[in-house]
Amino acid sequence: MKKLINTAESMVTDALAGMAAAHPGLRVDAGNRVVYRRSAPERGKVGLVSGGGSGHEPLHGGFVGYGMLDAACPGEVFTSPVPDQVIEATKGVDGGAGVLHIVKNYTGDVLNFEMAAELCAEERLEVATVLVNDDVAVKDSLYTAGRRGTGATVFVEKIAGALAEAGASLAEVAKVGEEVNARSRSFGVALTSCTVPAAGKPTFELEESEIELGIGIHGEPGRTRAPAAPARDLARAAVDALHDDMPLSGDTLVMVNGMGGTPLIELYVVYAEVAARLREKGATPARSLVGNYITSLDMQGFSVTVCRLTDELTRLWDAPVETPALRWGR
Amino acid sequence: MKKLINTAESMVTDALAGMAAAHPGLRVDAGNRVVYRRSAPERGKVGLVSGGGSGHEPLHGGFVGYGMLDAACPGEVFTSPVPDQVIEATKGVDGGAGVLHIVKNYTGDVLNFEMAAELCAEERLEVATVLVNDDVAVKDSLYTAGRRGTGATVFVEKIAGALAEAGASLAEVAKVGEEVNARSRSFGVALTSCTVPAAGKPTFELEESEIELGIGIHGEPGRTRAPAAPARDLARAAVDALHDDMPLSGDTLVMVNGMGGTPLIELYVVYAEVAARLREKGATPARSLVGNYITSLDMQGFSVTVCRLTDELTRLWDAPVETPALRWGR
Repeated sequence: MKKLINTAESMVTDALAGMAAAHPGLRVDAGNRVVYRRSAPERGKVGLVSGGGSGHEPLHGGFVGYGMLDAACPGEVFTSPVPDQVIEATKGVDGGAGVLHIVKNYTGDVLNFEMAAELCAEERLEVATVLVNDDVAVKDSLYTAGRRGTGATVFVEKIAGALAEAGASLAEVAKVGEEVNARSRSFGVALTSCTVPAAGKPTFELEESEIELGIGIHGEPGRTRAPAAPARDLARAAVDALHDDMPLSGDTLVMVNGMGGTPLIELYVVYAEVAARLREKGATPARSLVGNYITSLDMQGFSVTVCRLTDELTRLWDAPVETPALRWGR
Repeated sequence: MKKLINTAESMVTDALAGMAAAHPGLRVDAGNRVVYRRSAPERGKVGLVSGGGSGHEPLHGGFVGYGMLDAACPGEVFTSPVPDQVIEATKGVDGGAGVLHIVKNYTGDVLNFEMAAELCAEERLEVATVLVNDDVAVKDSLYTAGRRGTGATVFVEKIAGALAEAGASLAEVAKVGEEVNARSRSFGVALTSCTVPAAGKPTFELEESEIELGIGIHGEPGRTRAPAAPARDLARAAVDALHDDMPLSGDTLVMVNGMGGTPLIELYVVYAEVAARLREKGATPARSLVGNYITSLDMQGFSVTVCRLTDELTRLWDAPVETPALRWGR
């Protein structure tokens, strides 16, 4: 294993130091492991907190800033943040209008965010939660009861963040987050495994001519292994899996996401095929993201996430955002 | 070799189709292989054209847009664009104020851009050229007489683009481009080779415990091979190589760039060490980029590029930009 780290133990802390040094718009509480928007708490605005295991960068710290998250709680690599982190972040972003927790559906994340929310409630801090569970590949998984939360998290954070920025109430912000999750689906494909630094070897083995369809973002198993195939076939398999689960039509927000080790030129090849297949299904790729947004360390592969847009969701998607990883319109 | 492509032959064309589908701000001439800013030509503005081999995405197509390039000419993977492409692009962005060619110092690129510039001159189209040669690792290289052009290209394109947007003359825009190049230096480190699709196997072999210092962006040899080492040591080696070549002090623009296969969490680990080492040398990391900006297909590794800022260069760096890969302030 060759990685650009000092030690496996210090990787998350060291990366947080890099984020703090690189992004003056963030404030990083290294001791408590919370990445804040520098201006937090915003008086009168609903605060947005997300978090989860590290290794998925830019998720979540890269989405902290104007129009998106107020704080992110990074756990160790592929490990949930602890309740104390979440409590600290929730208090730190509370501007008096309540706080929304955006939680990916993994057992550890769900438990720890729940515990934090209960303890905050005891201190009369109003918390609502949106659970993201968009991955159609498997019903349950190694780390999950029910569907896994993956790419739709980016959409939920952006769109709920835009509504919070516009001054909506906690109930309204939670509602739009749930709506985005309900209208979104994801499916991932891996060409290679990731290697967790503390483990020092690949999480799983794929043959030189083999890929895994329906992979999770921690290297947990997908639906099936198959022979390597042209990008067109993989893109179609992904879109068809999404369409089978939720028929696609009308304006669609599409993300072709790299798993961390895939170069951008390949993601554009995939995007062309995904967009073409969506059109064949009767959907219009009206908005798009192509790049690394929710990764799995150094895994090679991609995931496709779609969201069936409404006029309101499109407007919120287009609203200004200013974070390290998403930035436009301001 | 597993890659997200249809065929090695169609990779560049397919990726261009993806760029066209994903970015409504671009206009892609697939036949001539030119990526234009949709509004090109801009009447009265100096046009900026760059280009080079594909495989370095987002360079150059990802930097086409407001405040940066007017057109990019992608060659085949690691292969210069042909003069006809460059001529087409130059004519396509000519708004009557002349056109700047930004050329990385590789023999093929230099020859083909020169030939295009001469043919444009015969048609009374005014062209100036900035040659980028910032890589301190080797004096000459496999593809180069003199230093290679690498990360500083991003800085030249951004800063010259901002000055052109402000209405400066061709001579002024060329001058600031040359100034940025003269004040910039780069150094790269590879953990793994890239694999060129048409070749089907890694360009070079590194042992499991070996890295290459001073690597080029085509997998061409660097200065030396060494045992794998902590990020801190690699970051120091890179910064020290830069500082030895051009003593660093004052406000510095710093890019920690991924080579395509390196996850963002590792780049942040490197950035923390780079910023710390720069401070030890007496320089202030005043502006930064951390991410994939000039890549080498799926290579794992990083490069560091620095530019010694002036007030004027800082102002131009901060000016609004709206491209697929760099976007702020507008």
